[in-house]
Amino acid sequence: MTDLVIRNALVVTCDAAGTVIADGGVAVENGRISAVGTWAELAPLAERAKRVVDGAGHILMPGIVNTHCHAGDSLFRGLVEDLPLEPWLQTVWKAEGAILNPRTSHLGTVLGFAELLLSGVTSVMDMFWYPFETVKAARKVGLRVSTGGIFFDPAGVTALSIEKRVAEAERFFEEFGKSEDVFAAAMPHGAYTVSPDNLKSAHAVAHKCGGLFCTHCAETRAEQADVTSRYGRSVVRHLDHLGCIDDRTVLAHCVHLDDEELDILARRGAHVAHNPMSNMKLASGFARIPKMLDRGINVSLGTDGQLSGNDLDMWMALRLAATIHKGFTGRADVVSTRQAMDMLTINGAKALGAADRIGSLEKGKFADMVMVDIKRPHAVPMFDPMTHLVYSTNKSDVRHVFLGGEQVVRDGALTRLDIMETVDEVQSLAPKIKATIA
Amino acid sequence: MTDLVIRNALVVTCDAAGTVIADGGVAVENGRISAVGTWAELAPLAERAKRVVDGAGHILMPGIVNTHCHAGDSLFRGLVEDLPLEPWLQTVWKAEGAILNPRTSHLGTVLGFAELLLSGVTSVMDMFWYPFETVKAARKVGLRVSTGGIFFDPAGVTALSIEKRVAEAERFFEEFGKSEDVFAAAMPHGAYTVSPDNLKSAHAVAHKCGGLFCTHCAETRAEQADVTSRYGRSVVRHLDHLGCIDDRTVLAHCVHLDDEELDILARRGAHVAHNPMSNMKLASGFARIPKMLDRGINVSLGTDGQLSGNDLDMWMALRLAATIHKGFTGRADVVSTRQAMDMLTINGAKALGAADRIGSLEKGKFADMVMVDIKRPHAVPMFDPMTHLVYSTNKSDVRHVFLGGEQVVRDGALTRLDIMETVDEVQSLAPKIKATIA
Repeated sequence: MTDLVIRNALVVTCDAAGTVIADGGVAVENGRISAVGTWAELAPLAERAKRVVDGAGHILMPGIVNTHCHAGDSLFRGLVEDLPLEPWLQTVWKAEGAILNPRTSHLGTVLGFAELLLSGVTSVMDMFWYPFETVKAARKVGLRVSTGGIFFDPAGVTALSIEKRVAEAERFFEEFGKSEDVFAAAMPHGAYTVSPDNLKSAHAVAHKCGGLFCTHCAETRAEQADVTSRYGRSVVRHLDHLGCIDDRTVLAHCVHLDDEELDILARRGAHVAHNPMSNMKLASGFARIPKMLDRGINVSLGTDGQLSGNDLDMWMALRLAATIHKGFTGRADVVSTRQAMDMLTINGAKALGAADRIGSLEKGKFADMVMVDIKRPHAVPMFDPMTHLVYSTNKSDVRHVFLGGEQVVRDGALTRLDIMETVDEVQSLAPKIKATIA
Repeated sequence: MTDLVIRNALVVTCDAAGTVIADGGVAVENGRISAVGTWAELAPLAERAKRVVDGAGHILMPGIVNTHCHAGDSLFRGLVEDLPLEPWLQTVWKAEGAILNPRTSHLGTVLGFAELLLSGVTSVMDMFWYPFETVKAARKVGLRVSTGGIFFDPAGVTALSIEKRVAEAERFFEEFGKSEDVFAAAMPHGAYTVSPDNLKSAHAVAHKCGGLFCTHCAETRAEQADVTSRYGRSVVRHLDHLGCIDDRTVLAHCVHLDDEELDILARRGAHVAHNPMSNMKLASGFARIPKMLDRGINVSLGTDGQLSGNDLDMWMALRLAATIHKGFTGRADVVSTRQAMDMLTINGAKALGAADRIGSLEKGKFADMVMVDIKRPHAVPMFDPMTHLVYSTNKSDVRHVFLGGEQVVRDGALTRLDIMETVDEVQSLAPKIKATIA
């Protein structure tokens, strides 16, 4: 029984062949895509479908995958400005410590996830203090989430012993390891904040449970220097020496890597989450993305948190990924349109170990889909839809979003909740948040 | 008699003191701002005003000034991709030559200006082949324009002799030199496409008529090398040697300047239009904006044309100007929030020689105003409105725009024309445009 057919759209599948279908669509059954094709192929299914949506004037594309985020940081958006990463982190941690608890983390994460979903993100890898709250927030708003137990040696917000962190991480895998809407992970903060033993413990949990291992990596020169002076190895070499880098490893940032470190990542099949806006705003630098692509390293995109953004705009990340490396290398042919689109979609799916379920519009995958309005002044003329998506689209062009076939954004508004209540609640907290760093 | 009062808004004036007024507004009389203040100050005016607009949930800010654009290039958006500037220009010029005439230039410019106005741009410096058509397009859509006679030695689209170009430039000044909605200029394309004599002729017209002189300058290393080999001087030195650089000169790009060239610009009081998106996408590089700001050079922002963008998004230019130089220099404190906001507004007004009329919300200036929706998930919490404008706002947050007190954008739609007719017409031209480079 077909639940939904979207017809008459310009379909950008993001499949391996880069298939684009004019006047095409998809059929959905039980939350999964049952067919992708032209009207001739879909018409028999549409006849018996519960719902048929006219996609005229829209690009239909897969849901976006954001592979690095701290959505709960929305509470601190714009609070700390114009500082480099290290003093910035100290101020941020002070504010986080004073404000965050399970309730406020949930609030901030709902706000951040709403922002993501409205822009077409249907899967996000999110690292934040209360992973069980993160899952609740994702389910409330309507997107898939990759998260899990946090490892952080300084007290941090949650101030847990390593034994309790391991236990929480294991409990997370037990509860969500088989969920369709959760990609469970172990999430040590970084090599400069988690000891070698605790990094190994985190990796052991992930490995035992068949989950992902995600950490910050080589975001700044200072981090590289710090880790090298403490352990005698650069961050990537250190993590690799500890056995923490494999094809289930997602490394956020990777700004300051030498050729040999790139070779290690390529050899291990590790995934790099590129966060161009955060890396620029915090003056971290430009990751060597063209060199990574040359080596076949899987590069996906992330927004990082709103403390370093200050928004969660994956379309901005896309545009930056497609342009800053041209500017930085002086070569207009690095990071092609197709490579940038892959970073936005299927490469993120690969990073989450879920390329068989998300990241493209193909039969059998989850019906996570975005409809982009192309009847707009900045959308014409359109010679190639992928060029339009990479170089002219912005988040406000996202009109409708489907998660597993359920419409979670309709005409630019969330369907599961009234986000304005959250917006008002967060704004009412602003004076209290500001007071934490006074 | 007060025509309009906007009340109850969060007013970001962009005046020299950086004044922000909570629960404030403006009064408008005869197209100009007659008062800026709190409700206590505006209430007496509001009682007798023809119209009172409630600005609750909005930032009220001055209209944006885009100081480098070729809006007619919208016809070629996304046509030529992944090439460096020189081969890219050759292909572009081929397409332009085959397609452009006064009618198609008008069509493309209307589309581009609509895109600009919808995002809050109320004044634009635009360089395109048919300046009289450009003014018509600006008046049709509803924004102020700085443009004028083009100088270009290769035949180009219009293929005029230098005598005819001078005559056209003079005629433009005669017709529009005193218009409130036109900032008349002479516009030689660049030092590599216009001979020294013709550059001097263009400058003479501008000087005689008290207008602006605008040209491309040092966009690429290849241009610097070309001009240096032909004339024995780099582009800035060459232009300065010809007497073409003064405080009425607007130089677009200025990517590749050494310290001495920066000193020349500072000494002459010249203006730099920074186009970060174009400079990245075409692999031109990163202009040395922090060094320019250190020297007190007036730096404003531009989008360049859609061939190099591919859209006309001044909010993107703003965000990039505030972040890429942090990433490039490794210093998170370069290009402050305030400096970036000035680039978006008052610095553009200075470049157009119109800082007494546009660029800030101050008594006596044109009532060119933008209302930015701040009841949105990505707008809270808001600790500082200027931080929100620079780091979290995007063009879709622009809800209403006023030009000289006339509402030209209402709820995200143009009021003077139905732009969808233009959108459809441009899209119908796409196959013909594509065929020009086949």
